[in-house]
Amino acid sequence: MSENKQTERLTKQQLKTRGVIGIFNNEAKAHDSAVGKAAALVLQMLAEEFPQLIFRHRPSVTKKEINEALQRIDTDLGQTIFLPHSCIKPDGGIVEVRDDSGNWRPILISEAKHQGKDIQNIEKGIKVGKKKDKDLMVAGNAIERAHKNISEIANFMLSETYFPYVVFLEGTNFLTEDVVVRRPNGECFTIKYDAGTLNRLDRITAANYGMAVNKNLCLNKFVQHKEHCIMLQAASIFTQGNGASWNVSDMAEIMLDIARTSLRSLSSDLFGQLTK
Amino acid sequence: MSENKQTERLTKQQLKTRGVIGIFNNEAKAHDSAVGKAAALVLQMLAEEFPQLIFRHRPSVTKKEINEALQRIDTDLGQTIFLPHSCIKPDGGIVEVRDDSGNWRPILISEAKHQGKDIQNIEKGIKVGKKKDKDLMVAGNAIERAHKNISEIANFMLSETYFPYVVFLEGTNFLTEDVVVRRPNGECFTIKYDAGTLNRLDRITAANYGMAVNKNLCLNKFVQHKEHCIMLQAASIFTQGNGASWNVSDMAEIMLDIARTSLRSLSSDLFGQLTK
Repeated sequence: MSENKQTERLTKQQLKTRGVIGIFNNEAKAHDSAVGKAAALVLQMLAEEFPQLIFRHRPSVTKKEINEALQRIDTDLGQTIFLPHSCIKPDGGIVEVRDDSGNWRPILISEAKHQGKDIQNIEKGIKVGKKKDKDLMVAGNAIERAHKNISEIANFMLSETYFPYVVFLEGTNFLTEDVVVRRPNGECFTIKYDAGTLNRLDRITAANYGMAVNKNLCLNKFVQHKEHCIMLQAASIFTQGNGASWNVSDMAEIMLDIARTSLRSLSSDLFGQLTK
Repeated sequence: MSENKQTERLTKQQLKTRGVIGIFNNEAKAHDSAVGKAAALVLQMLAEEFPQLIFRHRPSVTKKEINEALQRIDTDLGQTIFLPHSCIKPDGGIVEVRDDSGNWRPILISEAKHQGKDIQNIEKGIKVGKKKDKDLMVAGNAIERAHKNISEIANFMLSETYFPYVVFLEGTNFLTEDVVVRRPNGECFTIKYDAGTLNRLDRITAANYGMAVNKNLCLNKFVQHKEHCIMLQAASIFTQGNGASWNVSDMAEIMLDIARTSLRSLSSDLFGQLTK
């Protein structure tokens, strides 16, 4: 029921706002996630800010599309596909703009990763581990899987000079500062951000070449090394360093900034619409 | 005991073969894996084939070293590290050669991934699933984690024009052909390679830009797009398409081929030793 209502509401918004089409293929399913809601919000904000342009939001990109994009660059690339329906589904979906030639160009891809519930456990007095006698859960490595979608979308956008991929991290595996938590008995417990069993930020920073976190890295960096110029596509990684949760409006603000950077990069391909 | 024996044996080999040093820091632990054994074998073969050169094999690269390599290219890069001892441990380790300036240069990095035991289960008559009534296990997505080490080592080698990373895949999640398996009662069961619940090859091919699998892709590809030249670092992905296991000598042969490609790429930095 509530999902139907949401779909209905989105469809109404869609009709109301000229220039926004194909909101999640009317599924609205991904809007169940906070990052999906934020992306839907960004779509509306973009449509208001840039009424000359047409935007859409979709839940996935197919491997076939990625292969086609790679083949346009070089025919050796994008040759393999083992399952015809393989697709990439970043949980915030893909926001795109229609360029002057009628092609859809990605301007924002978002994912959120939650890992580490130690704050909630300690606040509730829940002990963890095999013997249920530990305060902190040894962190897993699920975050490493984030690199897969980043690589896929980087390939999809290999011909662009910007990479609008944003990853939002939250949970005690991604702290950047110590956090003091109160147990049910009033006692304080300090979670050290740099505990080796807990922090997993180093497992994701290969995706931004070890550049700053909490920064818009949407514009590709070109570095010169010897006779070669190398293009770097870096994900923009944002973390809640104090263990708080991301809220929709904070995410939307960051995402809007990235989408604007994408539009500026694409401006020569949007020039006709911008000056109409 | 057996581990000690192995260490002892490796140390003897190490002493015997001039030009091979630092075999896994005398730990030999990674040699427990088939790919680790293959890497140790390749080290011996290289030392025999290229007696002018000095090689070593180590189990890991630290994030600190990767950051330093990135910083040498551009000072914005390689800035973040959250745990001082973070390191990358591909299960076959890293084989390196010493260049004319005394620097160690990676020439072979290897990993093996096993996913999907359906052949063994069916042969033994083991049913799977919640109700233990299914022939095939729905595949997981652990393979996606392989991208993390690939990205890390790609960053480590960003200043090189070759990328000697090889991934060996085996198990029913990586089939490229149908496989007929005999149940204990003699009945035949065909595992279709392109079953959507089973095949996970598409989850790893972003790492080679969809180029051919089972091929040495060690030399970086440079593609031109509009005004930009883009350097592609592709992992060489080898899969046992029929569900068989990799044996050490087959892996070693492929690895040796990749190591030789690396050495050829590095030849101007090895020239002094090669012509001594």
